[in-house]
Amino acid sequence: MDPSRDATDRFLPRFDAAGLLTAIVVDADRSTLLMVAHMNEEAIARTRATGQAHFWSRSRQALWRKGETSGNGLTVVEMRVDCDQDALLLRVRPAGPACHTGRRSCFYRRVEADGGLTFLDDDAQG
Amino acid sequence: MDPSRDATDRFLPRFDAAGLLTAIVVDADRSTLLMVAHMNEEAIARTRATGQAHFWSRSRQALWRKGETSGNGLTVVEMRVDCDQDALLLRVRPAGPACHTGRRSCFYRRVEADGGLTFLDDDAQG
Repeated sequence: MDPSRDATDRFLPRFDAAGLLTAIVVDADRSTLLMVAHMNEEAIARTRATGQAHFWSRSRQALWRKGETSGNGLTVVEMRVDCDQDALLLRVRPAGPACHTGRRSCFYRRVEADGGLTFLDDDAQG
Repeated sequence: MDPSRDATDRFLPRFDAAGLLTAIVVDADRSTLLMVAHMNEEAIARTRATGQAHFWSRSRQALWRKGETSGNGLTVVEMRVDCDQDALLLRVRPAGPACHTGRRSCFYRRVEADGGLTFLDDDAQG
Protein backbone atom coordinates (compact mmCIF):
# COMPACT_ATOMS: atom_id res chain seq x y z
CA MET A 1 0.00 0.00 0.00
CA ASP A 2 0.94 3.61 -0.46
CA PRO A 3 1.25 5.54 2.82
CA SER A 4 1.46 8.84 0.96
CA ARG A 5 -2.11 8.31 -0.22
CA ASP A 6 -3.87 6.51 2.62
CA ALA A 7 -2.74 8.85 5.44
CA THR A 8 -2.74 12.21 3.72
CA ASP A 9 -5.28 14.98 4.06
CA ARG A 10 -4.69 15.96 0.43
CA PHE A 11 -6.82 14.76 -2.46
CA LEU A 12 -4.39 12.94 -4.77
CA PRO A 13 -6.56 10.80 -7.07
CA ARG A 14 -4.74 7.81 -8.50
CA PHE A 15 -5.90 7.30 -12.07
CA ASP A 16 -5.40 4.02 -13.92
CA ALA A 17 -3.55 3.67 -17.24
CA ALA A 18 -6.63 4.99 -19.04
CA GLY A 19 -6.79 8.05 -16.80
CA LEU A 20 -9.83 6.81 -14.92
CA LEU A 21 -10.95 5.88 -11.46
CA THR A 22 -14.05 4.07 -10.23
CA ALA A 23 -17.01 6.08 -8.95
CA ILE A 24 -19.55 4.37 -6.71
CA VAL A 25 -22.86 6.19 -6.50
CA VAL A 26 -24.99 5.73 -3.39
CA ASP A 27 -28.31 7.28 -2.44
CA ALA A 28 -27.45 9.75 0.34
CA ASP A 29 -30.72 9.23 2.21
CA ARG A 30 -31.30 5.50 1.78
CA SER A 31 -27.64 4.34 1.60
CA THR A 32 -28.50 2.12 -1.36
CA LEU A 33 -26.03 1.44 -4.14
CA LEU A 34 -27.36 3.06 -7.31
CA MET A 35 -24.71 2.68 -10.01
CA VAL A 36 -21.02 2.43 -10.79
CA ALA A 37 -19.26 4.57 -13.38
CA HIS A 38 -15.86 5.99 -14.21
CA MET A 39 -14.44 9.47 -13.80
CA ASN A 40 -11.42 11.14 -15.34
CA GLU A 41 -9.84 14.34 -14.09
CA GLU A 42 -12.29 16.53 -15.99
CA ALA A 43 -15.33 14.60 -14.74
CA ILE A 44 -14.13 15.10 -11.17
CA ALA A 45 -13.50 18.81 -11.77
CA ARG A 46 -16.92 19.39 -13.34
CA THR A 47 -18.67 17.41 -10.63
CA ARG A 48 -16.97 19.45 -7.93
CA ALA A 49 -17.62 22.73 -9.74
CA THR A 50 -21.31 22.13 -10.48
CA GLY A 51 -22.46 19.71 -7.76
CA GLN A 52 -23.92 17.51 -10.50
CA ALA A 53 -22.35 14.10 -11.18
CA HIS A 54 -20.30 13.90 -14.38
CA PHE A 55 -18.68 10.72 -15.66
CA TRP A 56 -16.46 9.45 -18.45
CA SER A 57 -18.12 6.98 -20.80
CA ARG A 58 -15.64 4.29 -21.77
CA SER A 59 -17.88 3.05 -24.60
CA ARG A 60 -18.51 6.49 -26.09
CA GLN A 61 -15.14 7.95 -25.03
CA ALA A 62 -16.90 11.10 -23.94
CA LEU A 63 -17.61 13.13 -20.85
CA TRP A 64 -21.27 13.11 -19.83
CA ARG A 65 -23.41 14.62 -17.18
CA LYS A 66 -25.74 12.03 -15.72
CA GLY A 67 -29.25 13.13 -16.63
CA GLU A 68 -28.31 15.27 -19.63
CA THR A 69 -30.62 13.19 -21.82
CA SER A 70 -32.80 11.35 -19.27
CA GLY A 71 -33.33 14.28 -16.93
CA ASN A 72 -32.38 11.99 -14.05
CA GLY A 73 -29.42 13.93 -12.72
CA LEU A 74 -27.55 13.24 -9.52
CA THR A 75 -26.96 16.06 -7.05
CA VAL A 76 -23.83 15.30 -5.07
CA VAL A 77 -24.23 15.69 -1.32
CA GLU A 78 -20.79 14.40 -0.41
CA MET A 79 -17.72 12.96 -2.15
CA ARG A 80 -15.40 10.54 -0.38
CA VAL A 81 -12.19 8.87 -1.50
CA ASP A 82 -10.87 5.45 -0.53
CA CYS A 83 -7.59 4.55 1.15
CA ASP A 84 -5.44 4.33 -1.99
CA GLN A 85 -7.38 7.10 -3.74
CA ASP A 86 -8.35 5.08 -6.81
CA ALA A 87 -12.07 5.01 -6.05
CA LEU A 88 -14.62 7.67 -5.16
CA LEU A 89 -17.90 7.42 -3.31
CA LEU A 90 -20.54 9.90 -4.44
CA ARG A 91 -23.40 10.27 -1.99
CA VAL A 92 -26.20 11.76 -4.08
CA ARG A 93 -29.82 12.81 -4.26
CA PRO A 94 -31.14 11.32 -7.53
CA ALA A 95 -33.74 13.22 -9.57
CA GLY A 96 -35.16 9.92 -10.83
CA PRO A 97 -34.19 6.34 -11.62
CA ALA A 98 -30.41 5.99 -11.81
CA CYS A 99 -30.45 2.99 -14.16
CA HIS A 100 -31.03 3.35 -17.90
CA THR A 101 -33.62 0.54 -17.59
CA GLY A 102 -35.83 2.84 -15.51
CA ARG A 103 -35.02 1.09 -12.27
CA ARG A 104 -33.89 2.92 -9.17
CA SER A 105 -30.63 0.96 -9.00
CA CYS A 106 -28.55 -0.83 -11.63
CA PHE A 107 -28.17 -3.77 -9.21
CA TYR A 108 -31.61 -5.31 -9.68
CA ARG A 109 -30.59 -8.94 -10.13
CA ARG A 110 -29.27 -11.50 -7.67
CA VAL A 111 -26.74 -14.08 -8.87
CA GLU A 112 -27.98 -17.51 -7.85
CA ALA A 113 -25.94 -20.64 -7.18
CA ASP A 114 -27.01 -22.23 -10.46
CA GLY A 115 -25.84 -19.27 -12.57
CA GLY A 116 -29.32 -17.86 -13.00
CA LEU A 117 -30.30 -14.31 -12.13
CA THR A 118 -33.34 -13.41 -10.03
CA PHE A 119 -34.94 -10.03 -10.71
CA LEU A 120 -35.54 -8.18 -7.44
CA ASP A 121 -38.43 -5.93 -6.52
CA ASP A 122 -37.44 -2.28 -6.75
CA ASP A 123 -37.71 -1.88 -2.98
CA ALA A 124 -35.31 -4.79 -2.47
CA GLN A 125 -32.53 -3.20 -4.49
CA GLY A 126 -30.91 -1.42 -1.56
CA MET B 1 -26.56 -0.53 -23.96
CA ASP B 2 -26.64 -4.25 -24.43
CA PRO B 3 -30.16 -5.71 -24.18
CA SER B 4 -28.76 -9.24 -24.11
CA ARG B 5 -27.13 -8.44 -20.79
CA ASP B 6 -29.54 -6.06 -19.04
CA ALA B 7 -32.69 -8.12 -19.58
CA THR B 8 -31.42 -11.66 -19.28
CA ASP B 9 -31.82 -14.03 -16.37
CA ARG B 10 -28.43 -15.56 -17.15
CA PHE B 11 -25.19 -14.52 -15.46
CA LEU B 12 -22.96 -13.34 -18.32
CA PRO B 13 -20.20 -11.29 -16.67
CA ARG B 14 -18.62 -8.77 -18.99
CA PHE B 15 -14.91 -8.60 -18.24
CA ASP B 16 -12.72 -5.69 -19.35
CA ALA B 17 -9.61 -6.03 -21.52
CA ALA B 18 -7.66 -7.20 -18.46
CA GLY B 19 -10.24 -9.89 -17.69
CA LEU B 20 -11.61 -8.04 -14.68
CA LEU B 21 -14.79 -6.52 -13.39
CA THR B 22 -15.44 -4.19 -10.46
CA ALA B 23 -16.64 -5.62 -7.15
CA ILE B 24 -18.36 -3.31 -4.68
CA VAL B 25 -18.44 -4.66 -1.15
CA VAL B 26 -21.23 -3.53 1.17
CA ASP B 27 -22.02 -4.52 4.75
CA ALA B 28 -25.15 -6.65 4.48
CA ASP B 29 -26.57 -5.50 7.80
CA ARG B 30 -25.63 -1.82 7.82
CA SER B 31 -25.70 -1.16 4.04
CA THR B 32 -22.41 0.73 4.33
CA LEU B 33 -19.84 0.71 1.54
CA LEU B 34 -16.79 -1.15 2.80
CA MET B 35 -14.37 -1.46 -0.12
CA VAL B 36 -13.94 -1.79 -3.86
CA ALA B 37 -11.85 -4.46 -5.54
CA HIS B 38 -11.57 -6.39 -8.78
CA MET B 39 -12.55 -9.93 -9.67
CA ASN B 40 -11.55 -12.15 -12.55
CA GLU B 41 -13.35 -15.31 -13.58
CA GLU B 42 -11.49 -17.43 -11.03
CA ALA B 43 -12.16 -14.98 -8.18
CA ILE B 44 -15.86 -15.14 -8.97
CA ALA B 45 -15.80 -18.93 -9.14
CA ARG B 46 -13.97 -19.31 -5.82
CA THR B 47 -16.21 -16.77 -4.12
CA ARG B 48 -19.30 -18.61 -5.29
CA ALA B 49 -17.86 -22.01 -4.35
CA THR B 50 -16.66 -21.06 -0.86
CA GLY B 51 -18.92 -18.18 0.20
CA GLN B 52 -15.77 -16.20 1.09
CA ALA B 53 -14.86 -13.14 -1.00
CA HIS B 54 -11.89 -13.64 -3.32
CA PHE B 55 -10.42 -10.88 -5.48
CA TRP B 56 -7.75 -10.29 -8.09
CA SER B 57 -4.95 -7.99 -7.00
CA ARG B 58 -3.93 -5.77 -9.90
CA SER B 59 -0.76 -4.66 -8.12
CA ARG B 60 0.37 -8.16 -7.17
CA GLN B 61 -1.22 -9.86 -10.20
CA ALA B 62 -2.49 -12.60 -7.94
CA LEU B 63 -5.71 -14.10 -6.66
CA TRP B 64 -6.31 -13.47 -2.98
CA ARG B 65 -8.89 -14.34 -0.40
CA LYS B 66 -9.77 -11.30 1.67
CA GLY B 67 -8.63 -12.09 5.20
CA GLU B 68 -6.04 -14.71 4.29
CA THR B 69 -3.36 -12.66 6.07
CA SER B 70 -5.43 -10.23 8.20
CA GLY B 71 -8.04 -12.72 9.35
CA ASN B 72 -10.70 -10.22 8.35
CA GLY B 73 -12.56 -12.32 5.83
CA LEU B 74 -15.84 -11.42 4.17
CA THR B 75 -18.69 -13.92 4.20
CA VAL B 76 -20.88 -13.31 1.17
CA VAL B 77 -24.59 -13.13 1.97
CA GLU B 78 -25.68 -12.16 -1.53
CA MET B 79 -24.12 -11.36 -4.90
CA ARG B 80 -25.81 -9.03 -7.38
CA VAL B 81 -24.85 -7.93 -10.88
CA ASP B 82 -25.52 -4.61 -12.55
CA CYS B 83 -27.41 -3.90 -15.76
CA ASP B 84 -24.54 -4.38 -18.19
CA GLN B 85 -22.93 -7.09 -16.06
CA ASP B 86 -19.56 -5.41 -15.65
CA ALA B 87 -19.90 -4.77 -11.91
CA LEU B 88 -20.82 -6.96 -8.96
CA LEU B 89 -22.27 -6.06 -5.59
CA LEU B 90 -21.17 -8.32 -2.75
CA ARG B 91 -23.33 -7.99 0.36
CA VAL B 92 -21.15 -9.40 3.13
CA ARG B 93 -20.71 -10.00 6.83
CA PRO B 94 -17.18 -8.82 7.63
CA ALA B 95 -15.12 -10.65 10.27
CA GLY B 96 -13.32 -7.39 11.11
CA PRO B 97 -12.21 -4.10 9.59
CA ALA B 98 -12.39 -4.26 5.80
CA CYS B 99 -9.69 -1.64 5.22
CA HIS B 100 -5.98 -2.42 5.48
CA THR B 101 -5.67 0.69 7.68
CA GLY B 102 -7.77 -1.00 10.37
CA ARG B 103 -10.85 1.06 9.63
CA ARG B 104 -14.25 -0.46 9.05
CA SER B 105 -14.51 1.08 5.58
CA CYS B 106 -11.91 2.24 3.05
CA PHE B 107 -13.99 5.40 2.49
CA TYR B 108 -12.96 7.27 5.64
CA ARG B 109 -12.18 10.68 4.10
CA ARG B 110 -14.44 13.35 2.67
CA VAL B 111 -13.21 15.42 -0.28
CA GLU B 112 -13.66 19.09 0.58
CA ALA B 113 -14.16 21.99 -1.82
CA ASP B 114 -10.62 23.25 -1.28
CA GLY B 115 -9.02 19.91 -2.21
CA GLY B 116 -8.38 18.90 1.37
CA LEU B 117 -9.60 15.63 2.91
CA THR B 118 -11.45 15.41 6.21
CA PHE B 119 -11.03 12.20 8.19
CA LEU B 120 -14.43 10.89 9.32
CA ASP B 121 -15.31 9.18 12.57
CA ASP B 122 -15.67 5.44 12.05
CA ASP B 123 -19.39 5.62 12.72
CA ALA B 124 -19.78 8.25 10.01
CA GLN B 125 -18.26 6.11 7.28
CA GLY B 126 -21.53 4.56 6.20
